[in-house]
Amino acid sequence: MKDNSILIVVSGPSGVGKDTVVKEMMKINSNFYLSVSATTRKPRKNEIDGVNYYFFDKNKFDSLVLQNKFLEYNSYCDNSYGTLRSEITNNISLNKDIILIIEVNGGLELRDKCQKELGLKCVLIYILPPSLSVLEHRLKDRSSETKKEIRKRLSVVKKEIMKGLDYDYFVVNDNYFNCAIKILDIINKIKTE
Amino acid sequence: MKDNSILIVVSGPSGVGKDTVVKEMMKINSNFYLSVSATTRKPRKNEIDGVNYYFFDKNKFDSLVLQNKFLEYNSYCDNSYGTLRSEITNNISLNKDIILIIEVNGGLELRDKCQKELGLKCVLIYILPPSLSVLEHRLKDRSSETKKEIRKRLSVVKKEIMKGLDYDYFVVNDNYFNCAIKILDIINKIKTE
Repeated sequence: MKDNSILIVVSGPSGVGKDTVVKEMMKINSNFYLSVSATTRKPRKNEIDGVNYYFFDKNKFDSLVLQNKFLEYNSYCDNSYGTLRSEITNNISLNKDIILIIEVNGGLELRDKCQKELGLKCVLIYILPPSLSVLEHRLKDRSSETKKEIRKRLSVVKKEIMKGLDYDYFVVNDNYFNCAIKILDIINKIKTE
Repeated sequence: MKDNSILIVVSGPSGVGKDTVVKEMMKINSNFYLSVSATTRKPRKNEIDGVNYYFFDKNKFDSLVLQNKFLEYNSYCDNSYGTLRSEITNNISLNKDIILIIEVNGGLELRDKCQKELGLKCVLIYILPPSLSVLEHRLKDRSSETKKEIRKRLSVVKKEIMKGLDYDYFVVNDNYFNCAIKILDIINKIKTE
């Protein structure tokens, strides 16, 4: 049932809990494959090549771009990030639905290319915090940033959310489990349409 | 328990279903009073003065403004809209929680004044559509607007949502009942804090 497999792009502002929500989704439904992005950013402690990211140096990344190996790629904070075409095609052939946690520009690009180049349905889901003040608390809890830095980050978040308004679905993450269930419902609806 | 009464401001883009969600909330919990706004807009067919709005002519509205009778007021599409101070104080004294369906500028103004002038908690809830395309369909269904007009309206909606990001809570209206329950949960949490 290759034709029934879809791409699920999950985006949202930093601190919103994308990774945890997707982990919940994968606990409930084992037929997902979580796409591994490629990046030129240096691996952090505990990060494993091919698991957290495919880590490439700049030359390698650029040469893969020239060879048209990426479905989408973007720069963010001086580093490049992208989705390898093989990452999607290899796993679609295994009859999996593929989840990608990527930023909004990449998501919008993927939606365009997905149908045209791969003949696959792609759904873009944007996760919102229950409120910006909740997000502010979460960012405070997990970082050593000053109040001023967090305020600045929140103004970036507003711009990010603005871009996310072009996504297919908005889901509020007031609770990881409920949010995962809500996304699974959306996927289910799309797959049975 | 006058001290325990709160103000609940519900805002959201046009077509998102604010009225229906609030109607659901009031079916489930009978202790709400739905605030009636004042306006200079002419009554539509079937609209009743004191029920749908307090209908004032421009002179009357302006004189009430000068007498400081409004907690908040704003202009929108050449008409003025406002919340009479008496509308809140009379109903708070009846031990009711007051729901106001007003636009974002009014909501933000109310939050500032509510604590300062009335010593009341005020919670701002912004209702989002499940997606802009869902909102687009809803607007198409209920209006005779052209595609171009609807596109224009959606770009206004994006700006409206941007302002709504300063609200206390975001709730997605994927289903009227669920959305009402979610808002009731938020209110309950706030009242027991």
